[in-house]
Amino acid sequence: MYNFEYRNPVKIIFGKGSIPKVADEIPENAKILMTYGGGSIKRTGVYDQVKNALKNFDLFEFGGIEPNPHYETCMKAVELIKNEKIDFLLAVGGGSVIDATKFIAAGALYPGKDPWDFFVQRYIIEPDKAIPFGAVLTLPATGSEMNGNAVITRISTQEKLAFGSPKVLPQFSILDPECVFTLPDRQVANGIVDAFVHVMEQYLTFPVNSPLQDRFAEGILLTLVEEGPKVIANRNDYEAAANFMWSATLALNGLIATGVPQDWGTHMIGHELTAYHGIDHARTLAIVLPGIMQIKRQSKKEKILQYGERIWGITEGTDDERIDKTIAKTVDFFESMGVPCTLPEYDVPVETIAKIKERFKERESKLGENKDIGYQEVEAILKSRL
Amino acid sequence: MYNFEYRNPVKIIFGKGSIPKVADEIPENAKILMTYGGGSIKRTGVYDQVKNALKNFDLFEFGGIEPNPHYETCMKAVELIKNEKIDFLLAVGGGSVIDATKFIAAGALYPGKDPWDFFVQRYIIEPDKAIPFGAVLTLPATGSEMNGNAVITRISTQEKLAFGSPKVLPQFSILDPECVFTLPDRQVANGIVDAFVHVMEQYLTFPVNSPLQDRFAEGILLTLVEEGPKVIANRNDYEAAANFMWSATLALNGLIATGVPQDWGTHMIGHELTAYHGIDHARTLAIVLPGIMQIKRQSKKEKILQYGERIWGITEGTDDERIDKTIAKTVDFFESMGVPCTLPEYDVPVETIAKIKERFKERESKLGENKDIGYQEVEAILKSRL
Repeated sequence: MYNFEYRNPVKIIFGKGSIPKVADEIPENAKILMTYGGGSIKRTGVYDQVKNALKNFDLFEFGGIEPNPHYETCMKAVELIKNEKIDFLLAVGGGSVIDATKFIAAGALYPGKDPWDFFVQRYIIEPDKAIPFGAVLTLPATGSEMNGNAVITRISTQEKLAFGSPKVLPQFSILDPECVFTLPDRQVANGIVDAFVHVMEQYLTFPVNSPLQDRFAEGILLTLVEEGPKVIANRNDYEAAANFMWSATLALNGLIATGVPQDWGTHMIGHELTAYHGIDHARTLAIVLPGIMQIKRQSKKEKILQYGERIWGITEGTDDERIDKTIAKTVDFFESMGVPCTLPEYDVPVETIAKIKERFKERESKLGENKDIGYQEVEAILKSRL
Repeated sequence: MYNFEYRNPVKIIFGKGSIPKVADEIPENAKILMTYGGGSIKRTGVYDQVKNALKNFDLFEFGGIEPNPHYETCMKAVELIKNEKIDFLLAVGGGSVIDATKFIAAGALYPGKDPWDFFVQRYIIEPDKAIPFGAVLTLPATGSEMNGNAVITRISTQEKLAFGSPKVLPQFSILDPECVFTLPDRQVANGIVDAFVHVMEQYLTFPVNSPLQDRFAEGILLTLVEEGPKVIANRNDYEAAANFMWSATLALNGLIATGVPQDWGTHMIGHELTAYHGIDHARTLAIVLPGIMQIKRQSKKEKILQYGERIWGITEGTDDERIDKTIAKTVDFFESMGVPCTLPEYDVPVETIAKIKERFKERESKLGENKDIGYQEVEAILKSRL
């Protein structure tokens, strides 16, 4: 196990009927900006629940945050905050709304010229303060409700980039599994795949003698494999929704990353597919992950075999046969939830591979836990998904 | 799954060579009281490491905290703090030192007459402030380094009682697995049993559809079963020590308790054995747990079968046969580490059972996740361990 530091102070308020508790978590006299997305919270009643709970607060609203939230949109919220002297933010939505709110929270207090610096100069320029915020999560998927990471897309440059800081950890997140009841199939399937791949990024690496972290990771994977299909089959199965929701949060709250290497190659390559073609984030992961398993089957061999055995019960055959079966099982699982895993199924032209390759070449970035996925490997990974 | 709230802001600094980092975690100009036990930290070099790291701080010392720390001792530290205007505490030791430090931290700022109120009026009188403190953990076992609970013994009344508050969560805890290298067998074995039973208290209850929490709990149990004997066999196996240490912390940091019932009957009965006979805390748990499994085999049936299957591979026989085998395997595991599991092995006279029964009768307290362990059941549980 590697040395590590871990701290996650986010307060989780979990369970049906929890949304009205939001009023107890926000400082009296706060001037709140409630951020949200395309308005589904109005259809589902979450908007009314929150508004009603906060009727004694000074409450502003900022709707219209997109999936894969745009820098350009966030900057409008930053302006509103400065004009209205907002001092608390409340993200009501899924990972995109929460991610956007993190960027807005830090961006509003950034003394530099443009908070896009957090992304293009990541690890060099970091926020040293942010407006405090909480979240009401409506869509289990990204884990953003219990971490300090955000991914933002800048439309003008077709860039989708990430930043992270303990300054943008939510003060609290409210998780009411009944929010799952009103989600469309596509969002549930995306959420399951997203959480699943988050675990894989922290688990499917070279081994470092971390049996506890492995078992926690496998516990989340097994729960998603078991409970995910139940949620898809019956949207009103509260227990399945609750198990899915808590799994998605724990998939990316830092816990299973303690003391182990991390990959994140699937995400970095996937972001490019979203940037160029607007493919749902989770779906890009379903495309790329099998490619990484294919191309990195040697360096990840021990863990792929362990994953195949413990999650899919694959114990027979040569190592290579077991790895092939394990990749096939992973693809089957994603496809069984209606998530295709190849590029042609998303009408991605072969030319996109060259563009993405070129981008990684320019950036000179190496991905993966061994920093051995360069632009040629990116090309090979994507070609394997044609 | 039940509704729940979860927040654990303790910063964990984990790994070999981490102890000198203590200096970065304490506010400059703090007036520190370092608390410790019987002096083993002087023998192992941890004392020197801490003193050296803090040589630029104003540092006071309070040694001599006992295993099963005494109220009477803690009150001396409270007096010292008040006299010297100490504003930061640093616990250097195992669970007893950290527990004592929690009580001292809250007791020093308690406006009432006697902070023993926290124990005798638990849930009615709770600390609303405490002196901030950190910990350097030298003995993996209790999980005190990442929770807000403490157990204190009052010698004058032979009472051993618990309190808990988010006000007494450590600011940080430093976990250097190399501290395990110098522990005697007995303390390692006790630590493994203690962590194991902490998990069982939160896991071996009636089922509430919490597959993820179950798997996390099982992950800790399996890791203790695997790594514990390695630590006992080779005290310098860093990886085994690290896996044991992280398991013991996660066994009682609130995570596996989210959304599930909890028992704690083993602890409550065990505390009485320590109070009357001074038996090591962990050893009392090894005595009582098999008794609870025996007497509560009906209400805990589903979970005992699951535990037997997933931890010990027991799948054959009738339910009762499987439960018997599972209890036997649990006892075998404790005994294999040199921890006896019956009362006579600790020279506990049969009269003690009647005394303990009487005490629970007086308190009118019912234990267990179903509150169905009254004084008669306490007697039956202890008699089953003769």
